[in-house]
Amino acid sequence: MAYDASTLPDVSGLTVGIIGGTGDQGRGLAYRFARAGQRVLIGSRSAERAEQAAREIAALDGVPADAAISGGDNTGVAHDSDIVIIAVPWDGHGATVAALAGPLTGKIVIDCVNPLGFDKQGPYALTVAEGSAVQQAAALLPGSRVCAAFNHVSAPLLADPTVDRIDLDVLICTEDRDLVEVVGALAARIPGMRGVYAGRLRNAHQIEAFTANLIAINKRYKAHAGIRVTDL
Amino acid sequence: MAYDASTLPDVSGLTVGIIGGTGDQGRGLAYRFARAGQRVLIGSRSAERAEQAAREIAALDGVPADAAISGGDNTGVAHDSDIVIIAVPWDGHGATVAALAGPLTGKIVIDCVNPLGFDKQGPYALTVAEGSAVQQAAALLPGSRVCAAFNHVSAPLLADPTVDRIDLDVLICTEDRDLVEVVGALAARIPGMRGVYAGRLRNAHQIEAFTANLIAINKRYKAHAGIRVTDL
Repeated sequence: MAYDASTLPDVSGLTVGIIGGTGDQGRGLAYRFARAGQRVLIGSRSAERAEQAAREIAALDGVPADAAISGGDNTGVAHDSDIVIIAVPWDGHGATVAALAGPLTGKIVIDCVNPLGFDKQGPYALTVAEGSAVQQAAALLPGSRVCAAFNHVSAPLLADPTVDRIDLDVLICTEDRDLVEVVGALAARIPGMRGVYAGRLRNAHQIEAFTANLIAINKRYKAHAGIRVTDL
Repeated sequence: MAYDASTLPDVSGLTVGIIGGTGDQGRGLAYRFARAGQRVLIGSRSAERAEQAAREIAALDGVPADAAISGGDNTGVAHDSDIVIIAVPWDGHGATVAALAGPLTGKIVIDCVNPLGFDKQGPYALTVAEGSAVQQAAALLPGSRVCAAFNHVSAPLLADPTVDRIDLDVLICTEDRDLVEVVGALAARIPGMRGVYAGRLRNAHQIEAFTANLIAINKRYKAHAGIRVTDL
């Protein structure tokens, strides 16, 4: 079938938890979902820092006064959410995910982590034993429904309250085809975004690694680049 | 600087040779460049097959009656061209490129080869000892100016004479920053295309591998997908 946003399920009642929600990417996504009226839980190793981040996000322009956004420790957030976004630094990704296997059982897990290294020539893709961050997550979470998505979303754009619309496609890699509709619907809560199925988990490495190319593009063209799939 | 097509150099006088010009990708690119009025040389192991392909392309709708398109063996084409596009199958890529190192010295070489495997689950990225097809080419062609580009261009769209415009960005990976302008100008000869610098050669693997994702997208959405870089 062609891409058709009108057939997406209603996800407005689902609670979105963000593990690593105090980092730039997690915080930016939390802001956009809170702004869209989604119930958002910010997770961190420190419940206090998570609560602080939730208060800061709730106060940002564009977030409804009655927005349901709060913070807690990662385990509690994983337990209380319907959809959990993993947005932690790559360093520590495996340990954090493994520790949440219990509360994440039966949950939808979206991994947006990009394993990159940096040297004086800029960013480059790291080699991951499992193939990619999301494949590592899938291996550690056999009871969860796992996909990669939101890998290419610019944190500065997400965080900028003057930006109303972020035009890009969220590429979704997963073995669970039914998941694509749910995650696509979540992506579509952010104006300008579409969720597009982009292959199996074994083809997620290049999606994560492509973030290095986006960083190169941003540097050369002074942009906050994302990608849009054409002919769709 | 921001992306600015108005500053691109004039490449209309350059001869474009296509090694593997009788394959789908090479033939499609040859058609588009001939249609744009570029001088095109089709290369093949067999000069006869190359000449035959050149005659067929010259007869397609949209190619000017006075189009300069002809065929020859790979070595002659490499020798007589200013810009040479490598569009051979991955199997045999190294041997073909190595054999052309002499005539390609001093030339601009564009590698558009994607090392992919296919099994019953579809396409997947192959591991390449040098990192990517273009890095293999760069290693074999120390006297050439090498980049990756045109990896994501749909062969059926290229070949379809009813398609006037192909809206996508050609991602260019290279160590040679000046090359970006020339290859960008060549991409811009095809209506709808922009050439965008997308990083160093060490970040070309994921560009090549991303073709597996585009194939997955095409299958799911019945599309001929490409990508457009946003905010540019």
